[in-house]
Amino acid sequence: NFASAKTYQNTNNSKDVVTVRWVGNTPEFNSGATFGLPWPRGKYQANQTTFSGLAGENDDSVQLESWITAYWPDDSIKWTGHALGGSEKVYEEYKIAASTSTEGNAAKRSNPSPQSRLTVRDSDDEITVDTGKLTATFPKSGNTLLSLIKTSSGKIVGQNGRLILRSQSGIEDDGENTVSIDKLRFESKIEEVTVNSTQDSTVRSLVTVRGKHQATSGTHDDWLPFILRFYLYADSDAIRVVHTLVFDGKADKDFVAGIGIQFDVPLAGEELYNRHIRLAGHDRGLLSEAVQGITGLRRDPGKNVRSAQFKGEKTSDISSWDTRVSSRLKWIPSWNDYSLTQLSPDGFTLKKRTKAGQSWVKIPGGTRAGGLAYLGGATRGGLAVALRDFWKKYPTSLDISNAATDAGQITLWLYSPSAEPMDLRPFHDGLGEDTYDDQLDALEITYEDYEGGYDTPYGIARTNEVFLFPFDSTPSADTLVSLTAHANEPPVLAADPAYIQETKAIGSYWGTIPDNLTESARTIESHLDFLIKFYQDQVSQRRWYGFWDHGDIMHTYDEDRHTWRYDIGGYAWDNSELSPNLFFWNYFLRTGRADVYRFAEAHARHTGEVDVYHTGPFKGFGTRHGVQHWGDSSKQIRVSTPIYRQVFYYLSGGDERTGELLHELMDADQAFLTVDPRRKVRKDNGTYVIDPTALDLDLGLDWSGLASTWLLEWERRGPRWEEARSKLNTTMHSIVNLKNGFVTGLGLYNLHTGAISPPATDPKNLGDVAVSHLSASFGLPEIISQLTDYLADDLPAGFEQAWLDYCYYYGAGAAEQKARYGVSFGSLNLKQGHSRLTAYAAKKLDNSTLAARAWKEFLSTDGFSPSLPWSSEHLNGSEVLSPVDEAAWVSTNDAALYGLAAIENLAQIGYAL
Amino acid sequence: NFASAKTYQNTNNSKDVVTVRWVGNTPEFNSGATFGLPWPRGKYQANQTTFSGLAGENDDSVQLESWITAYWPDDSIKWTGHALGGSEKVYEEYKIAASTSTEGNAAKRSNPSPQSRLTVRDSDDEITVDTGKLTATFPKSGNTLLSLIKTSSGKIVGQNGRLILRSQSGIEDDGENTVSIDKLRFESKIEEVTVNSTQDSTVRSLVTVRGKHQATSGTHDDWLPFILRFYLYADSDAIRVVHTLVFDGKADKDFVAGIGIQFDVPLAGEELYNRHIRLAGHDRGLLSEAVQGITGLRRDPGKNVRSAQFKGEKTSDISSWDTRVSSRLKWIPSWNDYSLTQLSPDGFTLKKRTKAGQSWVKIPGGTRAGGLAYLGGATRGGLAVALRDFWKKYPTSLDISNAATDAGQITLWLYSPSAEPMDLRPFHDGLGEDTYDDQLDALEITYEDYEGGYDTPYGIARTNEVFLFPFDSTPSADTLVSLTAHANEPPVLAADPAYIQETKAIGSYWGTIPDNLTESARTIESHLDFLIKFYQDQVSQRRWYGFWDHGDIMHTYDEDRHTWRYDIGGYAWDNSELSPNLFFWNYFLRTGRADVYRFAEAHARHTGEVDVYHTGPFKGFGTRHGVQHWGDSSKQIRVSTPIYRQVFYYLSGGDERTGELLHELMDADQAFLTVDPRRKVRKDNGTYVIDPTALDLDLGLDWSGLASTWLLEWERRGPRWEEARSKLNTTMHSIVNLKNGFVTGLGLYNLHTGAISPPATDPKNLGDVAVSHLSASFGLPEIISQLTDYLADDLPAGFEQAWLDYCYYYGAGAAEQKARYGVSFGSLNLKQGHSRLTAYAAKKLDNSTLAARAWKEFLSTDGFSPSLPWSSEHLNGSEVLSPVDEAAWVSTNDAALYGLAAIENLAQIGYAL
Ligand SMILES: [Ca+2]
Ligand SMILES: [Ca+2]
Repeated sequence: NFASAKTYQNTNNSKDVVTVRWVGNTPEFNSGATFGLPWPRGKYQANQTTFSGLAGENDDSVQLESWITAYWPDDSIKWTGHALGGSEKVYEEYKIAASTSTEGNAAKRSNPSPQSRLTVRDSDDEITVDTGKLTATFPKSGNTLLSLIKTSSGKIVGQNGRLILRSQSGIEDDGENTVSIDKLRFESKIEEVTVNSTQDSTVRSLVTVRGKHQATSGTHDDWLPFILRFYLYADSDAIRVVHTLVFDGKADKDFVAGIGIQFDVPLAGEELYNRHIRLAGHDRGLLSEAVQGITGLRRDPGKNVRSAQFKGEKTSDISSWDTRVSSRLKWIPSWNDYSLTQLSPDGFTLKKRTKAGQSWVKIPGGTRAGGLAYLGGATRGGLAVALRDFWKKYPTSLDISNAATDAGQITLWLYSPSAEPMDLRPFHDGLGEDTYDDQLDALEITYEDYEGGYDTPYGIARTNEVFLFPFDSTPSADTLVSLTAHANEPPVLAADPAYIQETKAIGSYWGTIPDNLTESARTIESHLDFLIKFYQDQVSQRRWYGFWDHGDIMHTYDEDRHTWRYDIGGYAWDNSELSPNLFFWNYFLRTGRADVYRFAEAHARHTGEVDVYHTGPFKGFGTRHGVQHWGDSSKQIRVSTPIYRQVFYYLSGGDERTGELLHELMDADQAFLTVDPRRKVRKDNGTYVIDPTALDLDLGLDWSGLASTWLLEWERRGPRWEEARSKLNTTMHSIVNLKNGFVTGLGLYNLHTGAISPPATDPKNLGDVAVSHLSASFGLPEIISQLTDYLADDLPAGFEQAWLDYCYYYGAGAAEQKARYGVSFGSLNLKQGHSRLTAYAAKKLDNSTLAARAWKEFLSTDGFSPSLPWSSEHLNGSEVLSPVDEAAWVSTNDAALYGLAAIENLAQIGYAL
Repeated sequence: NFASAKTYQNTNNSKDVVTVRWVGNTPEFNSGATFGLPWPRGKYQANQTTFSGLAGENDDSVQLESWITAYWPDDSIKWTGHALGGSEKVYEEYKIAASTSTEGNAAKRSNPSPQSRLTVRDSDDEITVDTGKLTATFPKSGNTLLSLIKTSSGKIVGQNGRLILRSQSGIEDDGENTVSIDKLRFESKIEEVTVNSTQDSTVRSLVTVRGKHQATSGTHDDWLPFILRFYLYADSDAIRVVHTLVFDGKADKDFVAGIGIQFDVPLAGEELYNRHIRLAGHDRGLLSEAVQGITGLRRDPGKNVRSAQFKGEKTSDISSWDTRVSSRLKWIPSWNDYSLTQLSPDGFTLKKRTKAGQSWVKIPGGTRAGGLAYLGGATRGGLAVALRDFWKKYPTSLDISNAATDAGQITLWLYSPSAEPMDLRPFHDGLGEDTYDDQLDALEITYEDYEGGYDTPYGIARTNEVFLFPFDSTPSADTLVSLTAHANEPPVLAADPAYIQETKAIGSYWGTIPDNLTESARTIESHLDFLIKFYQDQVSQRRWYGFWDHGDIMHTYDEDRHTWRYDIGGYAWDNSELSPNLFFWNYFLRTGRADVYRFAEAHARHTGEVDVYHTGPFKGFGTRHGVQHWGDSSKQIRVSTPIYRQVFYYLSGGDERTGELLHELMDADQAFLTVDPRRKVRKDNGTYVIDPTALDLDLGLDWSGLASTWLLEWERRGPRWEEARSKLNTTMHSIVNLKNGFVTGLGLYNLHTGAISPPATDPKNLGDVAVSHLSASFGLPEIISQLTDYLADDLPAGFEQAWLDYCYYYGAGAAEQKARYGVSFGSLNLKQGHSRLTAYAAKKLDNSTLAARAWKEFLSTDGFSPSLPWSSEHLNGSEVLSPVDEAAWVSTNDAALYGLAAIENLAQIGYAL
C-alpha cells in the first residue's frame, strides 16, 4: 500500500553505476537477494529513471527488479530497493546502473526482464508463483498457507504447509495443589492473502499471508495474529519466509507450549531405503540417515549400495544387492520419526524412533545446531526447512515424522514443545508498590519503574526467518550445509560506505574512516572497535540468546558479581536505552563490516518487535529497559522510535516487516490518550485529565520519536505521508514559536493538528527552562540533522537556531545559560554523549572554538575517558559460573553515547581533534 | 554380613610397609578415603596382623581402620580394605604398615584409634554418627533417611533428607488420541537401616538404608527399591552417599519422570541478604548469589557490604549501611527458587524466580555443570549437595527452593523432572519376528537376538554417588569449587603397580611396563595407549552419556555413516562383549594411570548395574550387546560375570555396592531354570524340558561366570563361601572327568551339587568336540589363571592339563586337532585374542616354540594387525553431525582382545617377542 512500490526495468546500459558487494564473503549460493541503494538529492527523478544490473568482466546483464523506497522532497529518488534474481553464478560484485530518460516509459517499466521466468497467477482461491525453478501455491482461505511446493520438473515435495500452535491454561509450579490445566492445539487460519502487483513482479514475488491461530482442540478465541511473508525470486529454488507473531494472550492464562510450522512431504512410491533424513549440526555438521538404513549391517548389500544411501543417491536396484540383505529387509527397522531439540544455547539432543508407542533411541547430539531439516527421497525429491539463528533462538526443535509412511512431515518448532511452556507473567508480585510514591521510591533502589498492569506482554511481537528448499532428489551433504549457512547468514549486498556517505541520504553525521588517521583519531577508532567486539563477545559469553531475548544486550554491569545486572530492575535488558542502535548502524555504514551488520540486524529485529507494542493499549510505545523486555511501566515512543530501524530498512531494500513497523508508529501519538508518561511525576496528579488537544509532549524524548515517524512516512511516501508532512511541519513551527525552543522541555501537543502550545506551567510563553540529559539521547540530534538535510531551504525559519541554541547551551556552563535564559540548566550529565550536539553546532556555525569545546567534552567530562583500560579481562575461576571476558568499566549507556559521539564528532569536527 | 569384615588397629610402627599414593594429583581436600591393598600368599595371617598408617617425613601416625576383603585358601590375608580418616593435611603418600604378632589381640583390635572422634549411637529408632566434625542421624523407619545433619558447633544445616520420585502412567506420543495420563508422586519408605558394627567403626562408619518408593499422591504399589549407603569418616566434614536404584516397574506403564534427593535447610533467623545460593558451573565455575542481592543497586550500601555478600560473609550490621539502601530493602526482590538443569551433555540452563506464580528469570547458563548446589546463611550455616558426573548423567537438575522462607530446600534430581519421562519400552515392536527361525534369520542381518518379552528393563539398576557437605557458615567460592572437583573425582589411593604385581593377588597375567622396552614391545605399548585414549575421546565426542548410558562404550563402527552403530541391533551398546573390562582394569593395574582408573570405574559402574538383572526372572544374568542395554534376548552370565568388577572391588577397599553385586551372582545359576540360553539353537527344541539336575552349561561362557562368582565368594569368605568352594571344586573335577575336558564345549550341570555330566549328545563320555571362539572370551583364561594361582597345589589333578590342552589346540591347526581329538575344531576366529591362551600354555610348559606361535597369532592372524594406521582421523565436515575423531578400523571386540592379549602376552612371554 505504499505509493513508492513501483518497479523500473533496465532498458540499456549506462555508465552511471553504483557497485554493490556482498557484505562479508561472497556466498556459495544465490537464491535471489534484495538490497537498498541511496541516491543524492535531485539527481534521479522517479518517473524518468530506470535501473539495470550488470556483473562480471563483460558486464553481463543480470535480472534486476527495482523500486523506490524513499524520495527527496522534490520527488527525486532518495532510496531504491533492488531484487536480484537467483543464479547459478555468484559474482563478487554487481553494478547497478541508473539511467535517466526524459520520457516516462510506462511500457518499459512493466516489461519483465527478458530472461525472467517468474510468473504469478492470482485467482480467487489461490495465488501461484512459479520462479522457473519451483512453483508454490498459496490458498486464500482455510488453514493451509502453502498448499503445494513443486520442483520445476513437477514433483510435489511439500504440501499442506501450515502453522501449528500449542498452549495451556496454566503451569505446573511444583506446588502441591496444581489446578487442572487445559491443553489446547491450534492451526493457522488465513484472513488475508496478497501478492505484490503481478505486473511488477519480474524478479521477486512477495506473497503476504495474514491470519490468526484457531483452536483445533479445546476452546479458545482465535489469537496470536501472524503475518507470513513469502519471498520468491526469479530462477530461485528457495523460498524465504519472514514469520511474524504478535502475542495477544493473557500472560496468566495463555502459556504457549509450542509454535510450529509444518509441511507434509509426499513419500509414496519411494523405497524406505531411498528415503533420506538430514539434520544440520554445528558449523558444517550434518546428520545423514535413511529411513531404513542398509549400512553397518551384518551382511553387506554391496559397497555401491551403502555409499549411494549415505550420499542420498538412489541405490542400484535391489535385485543387484547381495541377497543375504535383500531377503531380510523386513528385519531392518525403519525409523519413522526424528527429533532434534535445542533447549539451551550450548547443546542440542537428537533422537529417533521406529514409531509411536516404542522408545526413542538417542542419537549423539552436539552443541549448536544449524537449524535445517531435510526429508525426501532419492527419486521423489524432498524438502528442506531451515530456521535462521536456530540455536540462538532456543528453545527450538526440528521434527521429522511419519517418514516411513506415504506422507512424511517436517515440523519446525520456533518454540519447542519439549521446553517448559513460555511464561510471560511478571517476575514479581509488585512487592507492595501500590502507590506512585512507593514506585518512585523503589525506582531509587532497583531502578525499576514498576506499576501494576503495565508489566504486560500483550502486544509484543517476534519475527523469525525461515527458508524452504525444494529438491528433485536428495541433495548432497555439502549442498545442505551450504544452505544451512545461507539460512543463518542470508547473503546481503550493499554499496560501499563512501558512496552511501556521498549521497547524504541516511544522515550526514557519520563518515568513513580516512586512510591518514591522526594518532588521536586512531585511538578513538580502536576504542570503537573494542566496544563493538566486546558486545559481540558478551552476547556469546553471557548467553544473551533465546526466543524473546536474542538480539538484545544488557544495560549495566554488576562488578561485584561479575555479571550483567540481569535481575536488577532497570539495569537488565537494554531496550535501546540511549540509542545503541544508532551507534551500531552508523558504525556499519562507515565500515561495511559483516560482523557489525549481523549484530545490528539481530538487535534491530529484537528491539523493533519485542520491546515495542504492536497492538493493545500501548500500541506504538515501547518499554523502558528492565528485567523483562515488557516489564517496566514506562511506556514511551523513545523506545519504539523508528529511527532505530531506518538504516536497516533502507539497506535491506525496504524489508517489508520493518516497513510495517515504521508505518505502524503513525498512530503512536494516540497512545498518549491511554498512557500519560508523566503520570507519576506531575504535580497535578489526581486532578489531571488527559486532553487530546493538550497532551504533555517532551520536546526531546517524545518529539524525536514522532518526528522520526513522520519523516519516514513522508520520505517513503507512505499512505499517510501528507498527514505526516503536515504534522512534522506544524510541530517544527510550534517549537520555533516557543520562546525557549527546545530548552522549554515540554509542550502541549494537539493530537489532531500537531500544534504544540507552551507548557501548562507557562501558558503565556514567557519561557520555561527544562533541560534533561535524556531529551537528546533517543535520536533527537540525528533526526534533526536528517530533517535539516531533507528540508534544506524549506526548514522552518528559526528551527535551526532553536536547535543550535540547545546544542550550544547544553554544555555551555551555568553562567552562559543564565545569561541567555535567566536560569541555569542545573546539574546535567551525559556530557560525552552531548558533545556531538556541540560538534553539530560547531560545524553548522563553522566555529573552531566550539569544536574544541566539543572534543573537550568528549574526552574529559563523563562517559568513557581515554585513561580507562579499553580492554577486558578474562575470568574463568570461581568468581564466575562460566568463563567470560569482563570490562567492569563498560556500561551500555556510556558505550552507546561514546559510540555515537565518537562517530559524529569525527565526521563533523574531525579536523579539531 | 561378610565374615571378613573385621577391623584391625595399628599397634606399633613396623618396617613392613606398603606405600599408597593418590591416583592422579594429590587432592585439595581429604574427607576420608577407602582403598584396598593386596598381600602375598601366606605372609599375613588374619588373626595375627595389625595395620597402621604413617605419612610424611616424620612418619606421622594417621587414622586408619583396616579390614580384610579376601583370604588366601590358607586363611592368610589376600586383600585388605583401609579407611583413612579426614584430615586438614593431605599427604602425597601414605605408608601402610602390617605387623605380625603371634598373639591374637582382640583388645587391640577393638580399641579405637587414639585420635579418632568418630562415635556411633545405634538405638531402636535411629542411628547417629558423629565424625567429630559433623553429626548425622538416620531414622530406622518412616520416609526420612537422614533426619538431621549438624555441624560440630551444633548447627542444624540439613533436615528431612528423603528420596522423592515422580512417575506417570503414559507418555504423550504426540498422537491425536492421547489417553489420560496419571501423574504420581512418591517418597522413600524405609525398610531396613543398618550400621557396620559400632565397635569396629573407628575411622569409617557405614550406614545402609534400604527401602522402596511409596506413593504420596496417586495409587501405586511400593516400587523402585533403593539402597543408600552413607559413608562417614572420622574427622571428616563430608558424607559420601552411594545411591542405588533398581527398576522393577513395567516399561509400558511406569514412566519415571523424576528421581530426586531432597534436604531441608533451616534458614530461620538469617537475613535474606545473608542467605547464599551457590551452583557449580563448568570446570571451576560457580554462581554466587544471595536470596536478596544488594550488589548492582542504584544506591550503594557500602563496598564492604557488597563484597561481604558476594563472598558469602556476614555483612556488617544493617545500621551501618547507607540508609538509601537499608530503608528500601522491601523493594528489592528476594529470589525464593533456583533451578539448574542439564538436559544435554553440552549445555545447562539456569533460572530463578521470586515465587511460584511469577515468571522465572533466566540466568546465563553454560556447558557442563559441576553438579554442586549450596544453600545456607552467613551465620546459620548451610548445606552443599553434589552429584558425581552430573552432566555426564544428564538429564539432571539441581533445585533450590523456598530460600526466602524459614525452611529452604535443596533437591538433587538424578533424573530431571524437566526432561521427557524416562522411556524404557522396546525400541521396536518385534518386526514380526514371531518364531525362533525368524529371530535367527533377523540375527543374520541386524545382529540383534530378539525375542518378545525378553526386551525388558525389569531388574536393572543404577548407582550414583552423592556428596553432602555441611558448613557452619557459607564457605568460600574456592572451597565449593574444590568440593565440586572432589565430588566428580573422589580421591583414590592405590599401591604402586609393581607392588600389586608382586603379590599375585589379582592375576599373574599382567605386568608393569619395564624400562628397557624392546622396539617391538614399545610399539605394542603405543598401540595400547592409543586404544585407551581413543575410547576416552570417543566417549566425549560421541556423547556416550546419560542416566543409563554413561560408562558404556559401543560395539562396532559404521564406516559409511562415520558413526558407531548405535541403532543397529547387536552392534550398539557393548555390554562387556569380549571383556573390555579386563583390558581396562589390567591396563590400570600395570600403569596406575588416573585417566584409566576413572574410565574403567565408570565402565564398571555401568556394566555391573545397567547391563545386569538384579531382580526378576533374569536375576543374575546380563544382557548381550544391543541398541538398549536390556533389549537383547540373549541373557547370560557371560555379561554379569563378577570377574569384570573384581579389580575395582579390591582396589576400592571393598566397595560395598560392588561387593553386593558379586555376592548377588551366587544365585545366577538359578536363572538357568528360567532361561535356557540355547533355546533357539537346540535341536530338541519343543520337547526339551529344563531339568535342574541336567542344565546345559557352556564350559566357557557359563562356567567362567560361575567360577568367578564362586572364587570371589570363597576368597572373600562370603556367607556362602563353603558352598562356593564346593561347587567350584565339583565343577573343576567334573571338567577333568570329561573325556575332552574344555574341548567338550558343553556339559550337563546339576544345580544342586555342581556336578557336570557329559553333554546329552555324549552320555557315555566318549568325547564330544565343540569349540567356539566365544567360550574363552568372557574371562575364562583369567579366572582359570587366578584359580590356578589360588588353589596352587590343591588344583584338581588334571585340571591344568585340561586347560592347557584347550589353550594349545585352539590355535594348533586342523591336523594337530584331528590327531588329538579325532576331528578338527572347524573354522575358528578371534585368534589374536586367543594368542593369550597359547602364551599361557607356553609359559606353563616353558615352551619357547609355543611362545613364538603365540606372538605369531597375536601379530599376524586376525584382529588388529601392526600395519593398521594406529591413529584416528579428525572429521569435521558435512559427513558428520559434530566433529569427531574416526578410526574406522577399530571395533570394540578387536580392541578388547588386542588389549587383553597384548598385556597377557607381554607379561607371560614377553621374552619371545
Ligand atoms: Ca529488549
Ligand atoms: Ca550397557
